Amino acid sequence: MTVRRPRVITLLTDFGTQDAYVGVMKGVIAGINPFANIIDICHNVPPQDIFNGAYLMYTAYKYFPKGTIHTAIVDPGVGSKRDIVCVETKDYFFLVPDNGLLSFIVQEEKPKSIIRLTNSKYFLPLPSSTFHGRDVFAPVAAHLSLGVKPQQLGIMINQLEQLYIPKPFRKKTGQVEGQIIYIDRFGNLITNITKEHLMQHDHSQSLFKTQMKEIPLPVSLPSQGGDEGGVKINLKCLETTIGKKKIIGLIKTYTDVNAGEPLALIGSAGFLEVSINQGNAQKYFKVDKGSKIIIELV
Amino acid sequence: MTVRRPRVITLLTDFGTQDAYVGVMKGVIAGINPFANIIDICHNVPPQDIFNGAYLMYTAYKYFPKGTIHTAIVDPGVGSKRDIVCVETKDYFFLVPDNGLLSFIVQEEKPKSIIRLTNSKYFLPLPSSTFHGRDVFAPVAAHLSLGVKPQQLGIMINQLEQLYIPKPFRKKTGQVEGQIIYIDRFGNLITNITKEHLMQHDHSQSLFKTQMKEIPLPVSLPSQGGDEGGVKINLKCLETTIGKKKIIGLIKTYTDVNAGEPLALIGSAGFLEVSINQGNAQKYFKVDKGSKIIIELV
Amino acid sequence: MTVRRPRVITLLTDFGTQDAYVGVMKGVIAGINPFANIIDICHNVPPQDIFNGAYLMYTAYKYFPKGTIHTAIVDPGVGSKRDIVCVETKDYFFLVPDNGLLSFIVQEEKPKSIIRLTNSKYFLPLPSSTFHGRDVFAPVAAHLSLGVKPQQLGIMINQLEQLYIPKPFRKKTGQVEGQIIYIDRFGNLITNITKEHLMQHDHSQSLFKTQMKEIPLPVSLPSQGGDEGGVKINLKCLETTIGKKKIIGLIKTYTDVNAGEPLALIGSAGFLEVSINQGNAQKYFKVDKGSKIIIELV
Repeated sequence: MTVRRPRVITLLTDFGTQDAYVGVMKGVIAGINPFANIIDICHNVPPQDIFNGAYLMYTAYKYFPKGTIHTAIVDPGVGSKRDIVCVETKDYFFLVPDNGLLSFIVQEEKPKSIIRLTNSKYFLPLPSSTFHGRDVFAPVAAHLSLGVKPQQLGIMINQLEQLYIPKPFRKKTGQVEGQIIYIDRFGNLITNITKEHLMQHDHSQSLFKTQMKEIPLPVSLPSQGGDEGGVKINLKCLETTIGKKKIIGLIKTYTDVNAGEPLALIGSAGFLEVSINQGNAQKYFKVDKGSKIIIELV
Repeated sequence: MTVRRPRVITLLTDFGTQDAYVGVMKGVIAGINPFANIIDICHNVPPQDIFNGAYLMYTAYKYFPKGTIHTAIVDPGVGSKRDIVCVETKDYFFLVPDNGLLSFIVQEEKPKSIIRLTNSKYFLPLPSSTFHGRDVFAPVAAHLSLGVKPQQLGIMINQLEQLYIPKPFRKKTGQVEGQIIYIDRFGNLITNITKEHLMQHDHSQSLFKTQMKEIPLPVSLPSQGGDEGGVKINLKCLETTIGKKKIIGLIKTYTDVNAGEPLALIGSAGFLEVSINQGNAQKYFKVDKGSKIIIELV
Repeated sequence: MTVRRPRVITLLTDFGTQDAYVGVMKGVIAGINPFANIIDICHNVPPQDIFNGAYLMYTAYKYFPKGTIHTAIVDPGVGSKRDIVCVETKDYFFLVPDNGLLSFIVQEEKPKSIIRLTNSKYFLPLPSSTFHGRDVFAPVAAHLSLGVKPQQLGIMINQLEQLYIPKPFRKKTGQVEGQIIYIDRFGNLITNITKEHLMQHDHSQSLFKTQMKEIPLPVSLPSQGGDEGGVKINLKCLETTIGKKKIIGLIKTYTDVNAGEPLALIGSAGFLEVSINQGNAQKYFKVDKGSKIIIELV
């Protein structure tokens, strides 16, 4: 006899930690599947900030075992006509309000099926209109973890709501303009510029091409979202402009500069990140989400 | 052979998350029962705010599987002569300092037994006087989860300390006056007025009676604390006064009004709640716990 | 057949709870050992505050079952040449950056071995330079929990980095001077003065000796870090000076004084602690970590 490995159910919400909302969801899950392995991804998404939730899910989802049921609730439309969907991909199930929470992930994972939840058999009886986390998401996640198939949960649909995700673009001057899309606990400024953006280049332009030639780069990218993986990034001539300040070069890790100094690197989720070694870049640069970042070769 | 389903131990404290207090309790539990399923309900109860803890426990406890050991510590009297009690109800065990933490729950659950903890065999050796969470609550919860009976823990007593829970009352004008008893992360203002208060009415008075006649209501109430369960609440003539502002009607969910607008509804724990769709009602109305709420038919 | 008891992996970090960093680590662990029992000790260590992390680990580690893998990451040097080490003691494994995080613990636990992690076979493929929690600590902790031996992880070294831990000292006046080393959620001021400091005394000096004679004290100390354990502390003549204020006597628990009043006691981790019953001593005394505490017999 082998003990079955417990299925993982992740939770990501904007419920915070001052109330009992998250605990209640776990109680509901434990009542249906006592062997589920519930893992919190984050509950401090700013209230109703779908973009923030979508970003965090994206940075986290692929580090979980196959078969994980990712449950995310940032849901300003709770109780309204917005759908709740179960999206199945090659390796995962996603249980989310259909409001764009998967916008980053679907750029990377093709949905095999999208099911709109309609089968109230898998909900708590008499669900409320204001706490679907407890009455719909938690019981459905638990049933999925017991082997219920997405198709049993409702009806197939074709499309998901998408958030607008700002893309970096190349200006006429040849500079690349991006913006800050996330700021973490340490004040690290995470931009929408990826290593791929730095490596993909218009061959008629010289921005990164020159650099690529000077420092040969293997073209394969790391499978784990790591920031080097054989890619030798040493773009000493790359200049990042943030506010009125400039950072020269792209380095490998925080301590490549002295404590208190600004730096740019490719962070652990694959995005260009501006930081202060042992400091807080948000306070240092006095910027916020949405602030512009300019990259150029000098 | 079947694998025994792990017993759930919940934790609700005012220990916060900046120290190691909660983690230490879990370590003690895991040392005694490695298979216990420990679920956090909340650790950010404001320091020593028993009422807040009592409210949160009430909103959470019944969503857990039968046999769950609910452990709650908001304990300004730690180390003093206050008792620690194990209260058994039909479905649950509650392990709490006897200081009123069960005040909401005992309105709904009749205790089968109340045991005052005296048997130090189930405590850590040499318990401290300032951290009973680690030295008494955690080991006792773990032993309960292994099958120790409450009667083995100490001696039976008859009575529990009770907090004063303010009740809404009907004024001579026919208005119902309640107050805000809890404010959640989203700034939702939860009052002590329940659906039952709105439905129970003096037949000689016309406040809700008229309304009841106009809109027939099934008398059965939802078993899950849901806010509708067959009850069609559409009390368009109900007026909620908060501060100097009035909200007309009782709606079903936040999005029944436009973003930024105030609303009143019956929340997921069964209490009348004042909110701002996609906003923060506490900031909007500049009120706090204890603030008055007036309900009347207009 | 018996089900093997799940190995405990603890996590203590300065990652906070607003991002997905901790959740991601748990995902990695669950992918390698789905039966690991992951317990959070604390994630709100102030960013890069190694001393704080070291103190919290010390107060927590010994309350966990034997074989627990304590994983702690407060790591301003991530990606630099600082080592990551696996330290094995009689009962535990510690997985930490070699930056002093074990400074308190090694005063109490002799390492059996110290291994510098070099075997990337146990890391995630292509580890990043900025998130070793995900790419190194989590997978290594999971492999340890599956039975991998520390010796398989890398090469033996002899020494650990140590933080400077300020020690209390006796002044010429006979007073003992210590300082605040930690302040908890409740505003309790935890000092570096232990019960042992109060009991060990220069026999030629009379500071505590007199006291010891007047009130006989058993010499054995509690094994659980408790604050009494047979030791009758009733040092009524002990005076604690903090800022410009004095507290007379050392009491047993908070409620031995009236609400709102200051007090000194030996706290649950074995250190002299200054508190306000049902209040916040940090706000009351307007002190901070590093502030001086003077103890004398009067």
